[in-house]
Amino acid sequence: MFKEITSPQNPKIKQLVRLKDRKARDETGLFLIEGYREIKRAVEGGVHFESLFICEKLFLGSSEPLLIEQVGVETLTLPAHLFEKISYRDRPDGLIGVAHQMQKTLKDLRPKNHVPLYVVAESIEKPGNLGTILRSSDAVGADGVIVCDRCTDIYNPNVVRASVGTLFTLPVIEARGSDAYTWLKDHNIQVVAATPSATLEFTDADLSGPVAVVVGTEQLGLTDLWMQAADIRVKIPMKGIADSLNVAMATTLLLYESLRQRKRYL
Amino acid sequence: MFKEITSPQNPKIKQLVRLKDRKARDETGLFLIEGYREIKRAVEGGVHFESLFICEKLFLGSSEPLLIEQVGVETLTLPAHLFEKISYRDRPDGLIGVAHQMQKTLKDLRPKNHVPLYVVAESIEKPGNLGTILRSSDAVGADGVIVCDRCTDIYNPNVVRASVGTLFTLPVIEARGSDAYTWLKDHNIQVVAATPSATLEFTDADLSGPVAVVVGTEQLGLTDLWMQAADIRVKIPMKGIADSLNVAMATTLLLYESLRQRKRYL
Repeated sequence: MFKEITSPQNPKIKQLVRLKDRKARDETGLFLIEGYREIKRAVEGGVHFESLFICEKLFLGSSEPLLIEQVGVETLTLPAHLFEKISYRDRPDGLIGVAHQMQKTLKDLRPKNHVPLYVVAESIEKPGNLGTILRSSDAVGADGVIVCDRCTDIYNPNVVRASVGTLFTLPVIEARGSDAYTWLKDHNIQVVAATPSATLEFTDADLSGPVAVVVGTEQLGLTDLWMQAADIRVKIPMKGIADSLNVAMATTLLLYESLRQRKRYL
Repeated sequence: MFKEITSPQNPKIKQLVRLKDRKARDETGLFLIEGYREIKRAVEGGVHFESLFICEKLFLGSSEPLLIEQVGVETLTLPAHLFEKISYRDRPDGLIGVAHQMQKTLKDLRPKNHVPLYVVAESIEKPGNLGTILRSSDAVGADGVIVCDRCTDIYNPNVVRASVGTLFTLPVIEARGSDAYTWLKDHNIQVVAATPSATLEFTDADLSGPVAVVVGTEQLGLTDLWMQAADIRVKIPMKGIADSLNVAMATTLLLYESLRQRKRYL
């Protein structure tokens, strides 16, 4: 029923493997989505697929045929040893899609909450951290995430994985910092910058209004643009020997504190 | 001045490489500590080293000689290409120590806070998550972390790395769940279990007293022992499409909420 591929030299396999590298993703506008859950959320999020690679022997459940039908593109079957080779997971579940990048822009951001809540992630280096920031943003019901001055592109396989597919259902925008700042100001959204140099602890700040939580790299902190743009600067208290938290942790704390304060609105 | 090693076949190099595997760590009672910051914190934490492998060409600063003196054990120098091969980092900084496992027990736990705060981590699978839990526990000034029914041993190189060395300064104990439970009860510490099946949101629970936050795997949740032992069961609200947070995120949120509530004590 599906076309079968048995050689690692097959051009379609070679194209797939190339998409693990950012250069190929940037050039083609394509990227990889691996895993049942991730592909399901991509379908829900309206992502357009180009092709689907499957290995029935590795399926974990019985709903895969229905999902394959929903994806509705050329589907190629691989033997297990070949699938395991191209997978970027320890325990592949037999599904890898090649999809078109969503390439949303600031114009696609439409607040769903009465009091909007955004995240701005600046120059995040580790894909796992960026994906985790998306997962936490989904968890608090945020209106969107703006990724500024990207180090790691949002289509990196490890961003997809760490986001557990929330990349596809949450509005996630790549934008220049200055454009993001203008957009936030135009929409009367307060900029909350997380920085160890602040004197105000995050739980003492008023995060109940329309806010964008802005976080940067652990090493370098936020750029001048955001430090100067900030309406509120907050720090996370550090009571131990280490001087900072991982950036995904810091973001999650600020988002949940905002959720706690605005409980009556959401 | 230091002995030089140039061959990857050298028995000392072979022993070092073997310590990346748990089996060798369990058998020898040794483990690896890589990185200036991590080794420095291990010295501060009173860890006993066995040997030190260095590559001066890779040093990032000028304080390394002092640290080497503080470690005070047999020191071997390697050429850069060999050091890079044995390092488990992308950008090695020229320092890897072989150290004796601390092997602390419940008897080593002595609360430093007036109102103690503990973490119990049950069967955490990913070393990065376990290390991050240690980092967050340090950040809130917790009194200790009890790792129960270990999947990942605390001496895994990625636990050391993700903990940024807090593994050495924070009391971290490996214990059986039932022993940990008895210890907590004997010390009048309330057990707070994080579980999606709870009805109480964590920000509505009273976490200001002596508590141990208990977290388990994302897939399986907590075992019956802890579910039944729990004095308080709390959930973290989930407003998006995903149904859970990563376990390190969940732990960090509970710890900081406890810190927020007990601000006046710490």
